[in-house]
Amino acid sequence: MKFHLLKTDPSGARAGVIETDHGEVSTPVFMPVGTYGAVKTVSPAELAAAGTQIVLSNTYHLFLRPGPETIQRLGGLHRFMAWDGPILTDSGGFQVMSLSDLSKVDDDGVTFRSHLDGSEHRMTPELAVRIQEQLGSDIAMCLDELVSPLSGKDAARKAVDRSLRWALRCFRSRKNASMALFGIVQGGIYADLRVHCARNLVEMEFDGYAVGGLALGETSGQTWEAVQASAAVLPPRKPRYLMGMGTPEDLLEGIARGMDMFDCVIPTRNARNGTLFTSEGRLSIKTAAMRQDEGPPDPACGCYTCSNFSRAYLRHLFVTGEMLGFRLNTIHNLSYYHQLVSRARKAVLEGVFDSFREEFRQRWSRGVEGPEGHPDA
Amino acid sequence: MKFHLLKTDPSGARAGVIETDHGEVSTPVFMPVGTYGAVKTVSPAELAAAGTQIVLSNTYHLFLRPGPETIQRLGGLHRFMAWDGPILTDSGGFQVMSLSDLSKVDDDGVTFRSHLDGSEHRMTPELAVRIQEQLGSDIAMCLDELVSPLSGKDAARKAVDRSLRWALRCFRSRKNASMALFGIVQGGIYADLRVHCARNLVEMEFDGYAVGGLALGETSGQTWEAVQASAAVLPPRKPRYLMGMGTPEDLLEGIARGMDMFDCVIPTRNARNGTLFTSEGRLSIKTAAMRQDEGPPDPACGCYTCSNFSRAYLRHLFVTGEMLGFRLNTIHNLSYYHQLVSRARKAVLEGVFDSFREEFRQRWSRGVEGPEGHPDA
Repeated sequence: MKFHLLKTDPSGARAGVIETDHGEVSTPVFMPVGTYGAVKTVSPAELAAAGTQIVLSNTYHLFLRPGPETIQRLGGLHRFMAWDGPILTDSGGFQVMSLSDLSKVDDDGVTFRSHLDGSEHRMTPELAVRIQEQLGSDIAMCLDELVSPLSGKDAARKAVDRSLRWALRCFRSRKNASMALFGIVQGGIYADLRVHCARNLVEMEFDGYAVGGLALGETSGQTWEAVQASAAVLPPRKPRYLMGMGTPEDLLEGIARGMDMFDCVIPTRNARNGTLFTSEGRLSIKTAAMRQDEGPPDPACGCYTCSNFSRAYLRHLFVTGEMLGFRLNTIHNLSYYHQLVSRARKAVLEGVFDSFREEFRQRWSRGVEGPEGHPDA
Repeated sequence: MKFHLLKTDPSGARAGVIETDHGEVSTPVFMPVGTYGAVKTVSPAELAAAGTQIVLSNTYHLFLRPGPETIQRLGGLHRFMAWDGPILTDSGGFQVMSLSDLSKVDDDGVTFRSHLDGSEHRMTPELAVRIQEQLGSDIAMCLDELVSPLSGKDAARKAVDRSLRWALRCFRSRKNASMALFGIVQGGIYADLRVHCARNLVEMEFDGYAVGGLALGETSGQTWEAVQASAAVLPPRKPRYLMGMGTPEDLLEGIARGMDMFDCVIPTRNARNGTLFTSEGRLSIKTAAMRQDEGPPDPACGCYTCSNFSRAYLRHLFVTGEMLGFRLNTIHNLSYYHQLVSRARKAVLEGVFDSFREEFRQRWSRGVEGPEGHPDA
């Protein structure tokens, strides 16, 4: 993997290109979440048509079903899911600690029970890297220890120290040099811990760096302070990935702080809940007001959904529980996200990112439903 | 609507073309069921790619949600669902009598309660035609009275007589001459009632004729006798539609008896239940045997699903409940059905339908799971 930083805007926002064995990725980039090796409701062809450049998939879920050995035997995750673009996998750490029953962390790793059948499993830094190699990931993440940003500084410090030891073990256990490996900056809401963590990771010379453990209950001010403190220490010539945060506002705030990569379930999950992101703000497709609305979901969008179907039809599909509706909503939301990030990139390249962000804020706050927090984070 | 009969095979199987305002349909033809103005899980683009020529939609369901006035105001059903090919609508009679709570038939029409909210509604022959005109259907069906083929000859005779009176009222109430209207032959398992019903309908000179009320509990022998008795009286220059019967075996048996049009939920519903139709027979994608199977669902098929995904991946999607799996299965099953009917048509045009049918029977009986009855009828 190579990263080319093309331009840094006066605001700090960046535009670049990531080169992988499965193609190039223009940054900033939004990565749809394909938990089980499928971005919910959409096909690989639809992802490509919506502008998806790189997909994220979840190691924890694929570890449990169908298992990394099965995927490896079937030719790797790209072939399994028929996606020939780049794939980033998380380490599974976040899901082990948030989804599984009874996870127990020790210095060597994590013991946990599957949320599906209660079976006991063990995850270590070495295994997390090995699984991601079996999957054939283009960009892998280190296993880290996650603690709530609200659990106090002592807990945050201990988790950082353990995560740094694990990061080194991940780094050393990697066998496939063509798989990029990213370190993850932890440290909760404490700027000094973030700086400490980031500096130590940078010394290990990872291929890129992620900022993790945020938008988990802390205030928005604390979130962005922690991002800023982390980013300030990261080397400009390496890509930076803000994990799991992804309202449209989050993307622009993150880009403004020099972040390059984003993932979130919000566009896909909200689509299935009947909320669309449009050039005019959030739009609830379920409401009675949509019943006779023959306009497209977003008049400014040219995606398959907006080119062919009315708000009234999408409402009808939602009300009758037709799966096609979940999909058409997803296609639009992903298209919206990719268009938003692509416009942000253009603004960076033209050196006008600040005014782009300001214009977005104003348009968005006039929107159909107006801005809100992290409804699905 | 015009029908051109191109060829009748020595077996009695036919090949033809139906011309409609929304394009031509080569017969024999299979019509996927789009109950609520959407064929479950698939988009119009995918229907076209799978070889769908004409879609069936359900008047009863659209009557309740979103209502024919709404669809008319939004430009008709074609525009509403973004399908610009031909659409056939049923009259709603079958669903009124089988799905709704407390339907009560009198000479004038049917009173019924919605299966959704219990609200009371009234359907008459005139209203059935009017609703189908509001939807903008290319081919509409008469309202008929359905009785079980097991309910005895007296009940069957009364239902035929009432259906004939209703057929005349439907015929007379039609306002839009460009909408084709088909009469429906009823009469249960009684050849003489079938002949009586068909003769009377033929005198009214409908645009086409359907054979209805079958595969509802009678034996297979009784079914095909009733079809044969009906078909014998129908004029060769009008299309013939065998309603609601659609295993692959049914299609070939129906074609052998001179039927031209078919609809059934089997390919789409079975897809969502994990059963695929393949050149080698039925295939259950759920089984453990599929776990490591890297082959395509059907090696003889070139559909999007078979070109891109393995049996192992489809099993994985099914097991994890990913909607994409339901869709990929549906795309394949519809492709299989359309290919089967298209090969049957070619055999008719070449005058070799009987040997084609025999070859299919032998291949199918060697199949992965072998033949069975009407699992989902």
